[in-house]
Amino acid sequence: MAILYLISGWQTDHWVSAMRELAPERDVRLWPDAGALSEIDYVLAWKPLTGVFKTLPNLKAIFSLGAGVDAIMADPDLPGVPVARIVDPDLTMRMTEYVVLHVLMHHRQQRRYDAVQARREWRPLDQPPANAVRVGIMGLGALGRDAAEKLRDLGFDVAGWSRSPKRVEGVACFAGDDGLKPFLARTDILVCLLPHTPETEGLIDRKLIAGLARDGAIEGPALINAARGKLQVEADILAALDDGTLAHATLDVFETEPLPQESPFWTHPRVTLTPHVASDSDPLSLTRNILAQIERFEAGQPLENLVDRNRGY
Amino acid sequence: MAILYLISGWQTDHWVSAMRELAPERDVRLWPDAGALSEIDYVLAWKPLTGVFKTLPNLKAIFSLGAGVDAIMADPDLPGVPVARIVDPDLTMRMTEYVVLHVLMHHRQQRRYDAVQARREWRPLDQPPANAVRVGIMGLGALGRDAAEKLRDLGFDVAGWSRSPKRVEGVACFAGDDGLKPFLARTDILVCLLPHTPETEGLIDRKLIAGLARDGAIEGPALINAARGKLQVEADILAALDDGTLAHATLDVFETEPLPQESPFWTHPRVTLTPHVASDSDPLSLTRNILAQIERFEAGQPLENLVDRNRGY
Repeated sequence: MAILYLISGWQTDHWVSAMRELAPERDVRLWPDAGALSEIDYVLAWKPLTGVFKTLPNLKAIFSLGAGVDAIMADPDLPGVPVARIVDPDLTMRMTEYVVLHVLMHHRQQRRYDAVQARREWRPLDQPPANAVRVGIMGLGALGRDAAEKLRDLGFDVAGWSRSPKRVEGVACFAGDDGLKPFLARTDILVCLLPHTPETEGLIDRKLIAGLARDGAIEGPALINAARGKLQVEADILAALDDGTLAHATLDVFETEPLPQESPFWTHPRVTLTPHVASDSDPLSLTRNILAQIERFEAGQPLENLVDRNRGY
Repeated sequence: MAILYLISGWQTDHWVSAMRELAPERDVRLWPDAGALSEIDYVLAWKPLTGVFKTLPNLKAIFSLGAGVDAIMADPDLPGVPVARIVDPDLTMRMTEYVVLHVLMHHRQQRRYDAVQARREWRPLDQPPANAVRVGIMGLGALGRDAAEKLRDLGFDVAGWSRSPKRVEGVACFAGDDGLKPFLARTDILVCLLPHTPETEGLIDRKLIAGLARDGAIEGPALINAARGKLQVEADILAALDDGTLAHATLDVFETEPLPQESPFWTHPRVTLTPHVASDSDPLSLTRNILAQIERFEAGQPLENLVDRNRGY
């Protein structure tokens, strides 16, 4: 009866110490010090090393430590056990903070004001109100829905797009392949919060960007990707920025992370980038959440937020 | 029966054209082309020239075109007619956009990320969630209340301070001289939305800044003034920034506007400044609002949002 942490690319000590603080009675191990592999019941994973899962003969469930499960699902030998995504109020709050901040930076022309300030110019810019600006959110899971609601409450004209039809009060919801074109055509600021699956890989390309609105009340369109780098074709984003098809981009994620030193994004005047921090997982909050899932599971109740293997998220 | 616009420091044509569009039957005049002064019933004013009001023998009411009435109330010969503030959903929405944007920029350390990006560094910073950060809003009128509610809904730990006691759900409300010290002591990000009156002039000084929290989860404290420049003592803000008493300041308003070229604020690395644009008045929306007030007044009903001459706002 042991829990194994399988983490790469993150510091591991605060995860282990959070678990030891909240569940001192449990046997907690950190890969590669896994001990007897037959004793591992649960894996808590973030970008797990490919091939480890199949070596655990008594594995009962896998829990993701971040919002995306793409790295887990990419393991070709993934056993048939339940894989649970994390849906946590702390993670949602943090993502909404990021999305609202960067939508407002585009809407309120903060980068233009930065440049005006640097030139010591006192120059008010024409400013439409939020209800004249159309925000489009791709992905209406827990994260997309919360961001859509908060932006709607600030006054923005918000639409959402998802694979299957969804309803969010006061938000125009589009779905599926047929819904994509009209959704993009009414979007001044595009926010991507989709999962990374074979279907979404490379979705943010030249064609998608060219479909965004060009008649907005603000200088646009603008792109915010706070989901996964593999959703974007970076060469297309750069070309669109340089020929004016895209006015601004805010990127938290990249095809290769850390972003290589030679990437033109670092110094592009119309790019704001952050190092994959839109929604950092908080070890204590998420560990509490996963422990509650494990207790439910051990009491014979079903796990929540299970990955649908057909959809890949 | 005429309406006179008395405006300085703003473009005037879109105000006059908004009124002509919405009320083509009314006699609308723009100072100094006021015609027969005895025909003026109403003045719509923004930073009005001192001494004009007393020359209007049949003046019935004065309407402010912006959120602050300080420039109107400063006229020593102001007649005893009603003076109406503007409380307009458009103005409130715009101010909340500004406040939420700049609170989030401080909270999410956007200026540190700007610097990290400029150095081509991939460096995630420790980031507390919104509910670990305390925002304090001075002024709980229509603007302060809406900003407080939106920030509360984003997860922030919000308090408010006002001259007289107020109640806002989920917001810790402090009032009066006795409430100021405990309010400041629990504030990481201070937002000033107070009116400019003799009591509030110079309120944001060295002593007030020194009273802010120094034990916050983010690098702080930070100041956002989106109210009036006369509320702040700029030499004190600069000294506090330079000796570390204040970590960051976002200023939309200044003692002298336009901000003089020689002001150290322009290039201060920990100052974000905007040219008095936090909440621009939208001529169509505000004219509609004021026309409804005039129609109520002419139907014998009382005007709303009247200035209390004892308080000065």
